Amino acid sequence: MRTIAKPYLLFLGDAGREFGAKTAQGVLHWTPEDCLAQFRLPGCEIDLGLPDMDFPMAQAARARTVLIGVTNRGGVLPDAWVPPLVQALAAGLDIVAGLHQRLSDVPELAQAAAAHGRALHDVRHWPGGPMPLATGRKRTGRRALMVGTDCGVGKKFTALALQRELDARGVAATFRPTGQTGALIAGHGTALDTIPGDFIAGVAEALSPDNDPDHWDVIEGQATVLHPTFAAVTTGLVHGSQPDALILCHAAGRRTMRGLPDWAVPGLAESLQAHLTCARLTNPAARSVAVSVNTKGLPDAEARAAIDRAAAETNLPTTDPVRYGAAVLADALPGS
Amino acid sequence: MRTIAKPYLLFLGDAGREFGAKTAQGVLHWTPEDCLAQFRLPGCEIDLGLPDMDFPMAQAARARTVLIGVTNRGGVLPDAWVPPLVQALAAGLDIVAGLHQRLSDVPELAQAAAAHGRALHDVRHWPGGPMPLATGRKRTGRRALMVGTDCGVGKKFTALALQRELDARGVAATFRPTGQTGALIAGHGTALDTIPGDFIAGVAEALSPDNDPDHWDVIEGQATVLHPTFAAVTTGLVHGSQPDALILCHAAGRRTMRGLPDWAVPGLAESLQAHLTCARLTNPAARSVAVSVNTKGLPDAEARAAIDRAAAETNLPTTDPVRYGAAVLADALPGS
Repeated sequence: MRTIAKPYLLFLGDAGREFGAKTAQGVLHWTPEDCLAQFRLPGCEIDLGLPDMDFPMAQAARARTVLIGVTNRGGVLPDAWVPPLVQALAAGLDIVAGLHQRLSDVPELAQAAAAHGRALHDVRHWPGGPMPLATGRKRTGRRALMVGTDCGVGKKFTALALQRELDARGVAATFRPTGQTGALIAGHGTALDTIPGDFIAGVAEALSPDNDPDHWDVIEGQATVLHPTFAAVTTGLVHGSQPDALILCHAAGRRTMRGLPDWAVPGLAESLQAHLTCARLTNPAARSVAVSVNTKGLPDAEARAAIDRAAAETNLPTTDPVRYGAAVLADALPGS
Repeated sequence: MRTIAKPYLLFLGDAGREFGAKTAQGVLHWTPEDCLAQFRLPGCEIDLGLPDMDFPMAQAARARTVLIGVTNRGGVLPDAWVPPLVQALAAGLDIVAGLHQRLSDVPELAQAAAAHGRALHDVRHWPGGPMPLATGRKRTGRRALMVGTDCGVGKKFTALALQRELDARGVAATFRPTGQTGALIAGHGTALDTIPGDFIAGVAEALSPDNDPDHWDVIEGQATVLHPTFAAVTTGLVHGSQPDALILCHAAGRRTMRGLPDWAVPGLAESLQAHLTCARLTNPAARSVAVSVNTKGLPDAEARAAIDRAAAETNLPTTDPVRYGAAVLADALPGS
């Protein structure tokens, strides 16, 4: 299991506004206590509002890992970022990235990491050793999996909000990321989207191992089993997760699937049934327990109406956990 | 699209009996006309009954490509095979393999291929350029997809037998392989098992492109959507294939899933329904049309009884296409 040392120095490079800093902003939003400072090269147009530090300063302030917080379209590391990242390793910091390209495939970084005894973490890649094949063996402990009506409907936010609520209640629970930003927030885990098809369910099994009988793994979802592009990943994740409880995530008002303007978002009840059927292959006791509606940007009355509609469509406890808290979701978990 | 030049020289290396030569034997069984000769190193204990040739002899006899016909457990190329393969490239032959390791990642082979202008084909890897994401756009032409109750139930053999039958009837049809041996038999295609999850459906879309309205793509299946280990691959394949016709493949007498002694093989009707539900996401007109039962090793009366049982369970035309011919399957395709 990969473990990433924290706190982070968020590396923004020389990113212009067009880059966006979704990764860094997601980590900062959910774990501000893990984000010590930002590092920017000349020309950087992004500002997260954190103190600017160079590598020796950050190391002296007890930062442990440089997090590559911006991504360009191709998911590769710009050449201009390599020399400063070599300096970071020399200053005693690890590096973590969620790029398609592996950090360790950049010779200068591999050499510097070896020379200074630092770690290079690629959360989009299996951390080493043979990838596991799923066995279907039932594991101990309890698992709640976020599923959805589409991509980008709030599965990660819902999982994080639920895990915090369980923490606050003193229920033993672990957030299990399955995407790159989630893995950077958690400091462990592997993004599933780049895992070869044969191994997706096996990696998903490894991501939520045997645990205490009352412990909840709160597993970030991916896409939907009704997605014409990405359902393979969802299917492997659902089978490998062996979820006891499914929480359906939905974006209020979304009519067509993201990036697929000819594809209507499937209904909530249809989506739940499809995921439940899939889940019961490896856990016949799987149940749908709640719905999470992303109402971002809606006025309060419309948000509440959207939640009421989703509840009526599914006959399940429903809320927007980011807006109204995750108590409704935590209450819906059997025995928690 | 990758195209592999034929005929083949089947490379058996110094393989002992424990290696097996399943790949070479599969290619030889289905396309004996493409298998000119075999090449064996000292110590090789496998004999396919083909003439032994060295590389210059094979080249003079118009062989075009050396096919690595044996695989060890790790799917990597033994060091001892590299020097003879360099000689093959120097003699003017291409090389094709279905290994996990890429031929082009072996520096000696990459250099020799470049020096002699030869091709290195890795059918387990996308042939280059960015992998496509599935769009769900409906394509022209007709598609029959083999689905199954388990792995190793005869999907490849069924697809090949059906394509031959359609050829014999003068129906325009193309075998579309989705596994390594199928790709070696066809001389085109990419194995789906090593494609990252996000791209499985997209690669499956690319494997059966737009075609004439009456043309049939006969698509090799993979695993089953009810497989706890490999369903991710199947799901992406079904979605990307947009099949008009599903043919269910089943191994007579198989009680538990291959390699999963605790998992019962699901029923035929249940398997068909699960694949049909999956297929209708991208092609609402998908239909189950026939069943193919692998009766290998059974006496004739038992084989016929197994076929009758499968027909009764599914209410579909049923045969063993390897034993009794594929006419029943071809008759079941709408309009063929």
